[in-house]
Amino acid sequence: MIGGEALLRTLVASGVDTCFMNPGTSEMHFVAALDAVPEMRGVLALFEGVATGAADGYARMTGRPAAVLLHLGPGLGNGVANLHNARRAWSPVVAVVGDHATYHKPFDAQLESDIETVARNVSPAIIRVASSASVGVDAAAAVAASTGPPGRVATLILPADLSWSDGATVGAPVAPARPPATEGAAVATAARALRSGERAAIVVGSSACRSEELRLAASIAASTGAPIICETFPARLQRGAGLPAVPRLAYLGEMAAAQLQGVRHLILVGAKAPVSFFAYPGKPSRLAPEDCELHQLSAPGVPSLAALDALAGELAVAAWKPGPDAPRPAIPSGELTLQAVSAAIGALLPEGAIVSDESNTSGLGLGEATAGAPPHDWLTLTGGAIGQGLPAACGAATACPDRKVVALQADGSALYTFQALWTMARESLDVVVVLYNNRSYAILNMELQRTGAATGGTRAKRMLDLSDPDVDFVALASGLGVPAQRATTADDFAAALGRALAAPGPALIEVVVPTLY
Amino acid sequence: MIGGEALLRTLVASGVDTCFMNPGTSEMHFVAALDAVPEMRGVLALFEGVATGAADGYARMTGRPAAVLLHLGPGLGNGVANLHNARRAWSPVVAVVGDHATYHKPFDAQLESDIETVARNVSPAIIRVASSASVGVDAAAAVAASTGPPGRVATLILPADLSWSDGATVGAPVAPARPPATEGAAVATAARALRSGERAAIVVGSSACRSEELRLAASIAASTGAPIICETFPARLQRGAGLPAVPRLAYLGEMAAAQLQGVRHLILVGAKAPVSFFAYPGKPSRLAPEDCELHQLSAPGVPSLAALDALAGELAVAAWKPGPDAPRPAIPSGELTLQAVSAAIGALLPEGAIVSDESNTSGLGLGEATAGAPPHDWLTLTGGAIGQGLPAACGAATACPDRKVVALQADGSALYTFQALWTMARESLDVVVVLYNNRSYAILNMELQRTGAATGGTRAKRMLDLSDPDVDFVALASGLGVPAQRATTADDFAAALGRALAAPGPALIEVVVPTLY
Repeated sequence: MIGGEALLRTLVASGVDTCFMNPGTSEMHFVAALDAVPEMRGVLALFEGVATGAADGYARMTGRPAAVLLHLGPGLGNGVANLHNARRAWSPVVAVVGDHATYHKPFDAQLESDIETVARNVSPAIIRVASSASVGVDAAAAVAASTGPPGRVATLILPADLSWSDGATVGAPVAPARPPATEGAAVATAARALRSGERAAIVVGSSACRSEELRLAASIAASTGAPIICETFPARLQRGAGLPAVPRLAYLGEMAAAQLQGVRHLILVGAKAPVSFFAYPGKPSRLAPEDCELHQLSAPGVPSLAALDALAGELAVAAWKPGPDAPRPAIPSGELTLQAVSAAIGALLPEGAIVSDESNTSGLGLGEATAGAPPHDWLTLTGGAIGQGLPAACGAATACPDRKVVALQADGSALYTFQALWTMARESLDVVVVLYNNRSYAILNMELQRTGAATGGTRAKRMLDLSDPDVDFVALASGLGVPAQRATTADDFAAALGRALAAPGPALIEVVVPTLY
Repeated sequence: MIGGEALLRTLVASGVDTCFMNPGTSEMHFVAALDAVPEMRGVLALFEGVATGAADGYARMTGRPAAVLLHLGPGLGNGVANLHNARRAWSPVVAVVGDHATYHKPFDAQLESDIETVARNVSPAIIRVASSASVGVDAAAAVAASTGPPGRVATLILPADLSWSDGATVGAPVAPARPPATEGAAVATAARALRSGERAAIVVGSSACRSEELRLAASIAASTGAPIICETFPARLQRGAGLPAVPRLAYLGEMAAAQLQGVRHLILVGAKAPVSFFAYPGKPSRLAPEDCELHQLSAPGVPSLAALDALAGELAVAAWKPGPDAPRPAIPSGELTLQAVSAAIGALLPEGAIVSDESNTSGLGLGEATAGAPPHDWLTLTGGAIGQGLPAACGAATACPDRKVVALQADGSALYTFQALWTMARESLDVVVVLYNNRSYAILNMELQRTGAATGGTRAKRMLDLSDPDVDFVALASGLGVPAQRATTADDFAAALGRALAAPGPALIEVVVPTLY
């Protein structure tokens, strides 16, 4: 068996049955093997960042890695931004990167590059296949490395000649590592802090943001009075009617600091210590008060259920009982404000929806408007590398074909990876994109002020302005095969959203909205 | 003076007056300083690969670096593919990458990354600014490092706090390094080979592809009988009426080997030894015959004029006299074949045009059709990282506002960086894009055969197919503010091309063409 086929068969045997890809010449034998291994689904992306972002979205929804297939160092480079987001989401991803044939590398051909170096920032596990015979073993090891826990990006570098040469065998699946055991001392310390009578709060990170973990955390919160706060950008937050309402830590440091004011003990459950997203002149990086003690109950990215269970047991708390659900907004009418867009989404979001949220400054009031919607998942920009929302929506829709994906997407960010729309059309993915077009890098206008850089000059402002020319997202979506329309009133928008949610396949609704900054 | 302003002023003082940018929060003080330093032109790109590809195109046309402004590791990552092409073009580029504030880095905030690692593959000169006081000196050093010779990508990493802090001063320009002196021994060896009576050929690389160098090479060729061959992907080749006609080494190894068959001596002038672009089963990487001796007259990327001059003197050759120019094709009529597209371009290409050629498999017959056109420059995909043609066109048009840029662009490659169209519209750049839409990664269909991977299966083919859905480039261009139309006959295309060449500003003409593979 040739290496390429052994790789595909090993991936499938190890539970990896989806590959988002943007291949080149060095990967042709992997691509050709798709016909021999029909259990592997190949999904074509027109840009590598779409493939890597899709793998991240897929992993967040399934807990399993997808593969991505990339071409040499430059192809991997194009995928790095969304692998950065995947890394920050603790998503398992198997990045297969084709390389030149082993004997071709010393010739320094045009596309020669040091793939390991490109991978290093985002991928703590890098395996270079050294012989056809080892392809299977190496691929199985890469899958196991990716699943952790915590999940991570594992990079498998496959030189072309080892892909096309015979002598390869299918690798046996490697059992995943066991998650670290709950530390009794950490549980006891957290319990002591929560019983201390001093002000405490519980910060939940990605691995503690599913319904079961949140119910346990809510039972602890109800019993101790320590509120639950979700990290600013969770990989996947389950929320909606019948689930605990968990506010997110604010993006703006001042607001986050206000949320944490007076707190003496932070219980970190699968979360890191909260820090400011960026630094600002004269403002602290750490968001918790100086005299606040941090207590790590479970590490970021590893399962938190057992630790929460142990803590609940230690505190002997009662099971959480849901209170009344937040009300759903009425379907809005009149002017198309950001609040109206949020209200329509809150009013119409269907049960089981997956929201891919890269709405940035346009997401005003979204959290509140959707708090009472039927249970749904909320995916966010974990690593801050923009251009993640549409690719992640592709991956989530691929992972969950029976659920509706709603991508809430800011214009500037959309334009990094807009090619995702073509993949949505190609694969008939059930994604409704709400495209907020405020014709601005609005967040940078805000940051220009917040960093103290603003001088009121027009030349700087022009670098943050996306008008002149205005981008027509209806035209862009149509050009990539996705039916699209522009809504200009709240009534229009609600009607269009209702229609799009009821129809199968992708759709885009552009809303031209005011910028807040 | 704050660091950001000192950086801009130092760049301008060092002759860098254009910055292609896609900034983020960490770069706000650099952006704000644009108002204080009006000598610096800021050009906004919606994706980092557009900015880096534009800087490459700019450098190829001016010989001077532009700056690019990028945001942290992920932003640099998005720019890496076109920096790879810039590296292979020996283009001077100053990549300014903002980083988190020095004191913020230990907190591992969401966007924290190791920027040096991301840069390493493409940038042999990496300077991290360590204090506001050193910003100016560091920036001047980065400019000097970028100019070489050979030109290279220099990366200047500027932490946000050093950009916003006072105490910086403008750095004095650093005199560029002197190019290496011509080696008498290399000249003598080359002369001996050319006089040997054995078959010889002259391979010219980027630094020997300008009119003056080519005339000298042609005088040597005429006198010795050794043909000139241009490297496969020159950074900038000057050609057309009145200039020596220089064929390029073929992309396909078999054809390249045929061009070099029987050659016993290759004189390499600013070029590397020819190697196959990719490896193929059972085929050699080296393209020159086994018994062919390689003679390096001048190193790649460094000026070659003096060496050619010395060689011409050593051989006492007569000055080159132009022969009759190749005929220009007639304006085509009838069916819109690839040959018809090439003929129309050859018939209409204006004097001084800059052709950014990423036509890939659709460029059939282009070289011949344009050989007799008025003198023009031809820019190619030096590093093989696709998605370079439209960004390079942006940069060339920015560098040369009095010249017409013609971007010959394949569809699959266009879709990596088509955001470049918006920058063309924003800056009213004089670029006519001919968009070859064959609805396929055609070159990969060919490579699937050539690597021996093809099995005739439909699942593999689908990963190389860009139909279902078809991409509508007229819609995409219109959505980004560039007037566009689709030509369906040769007459249509020629008329549209003529109109576009006569009008100022950007335009796109989509031609739906058959795929060759």
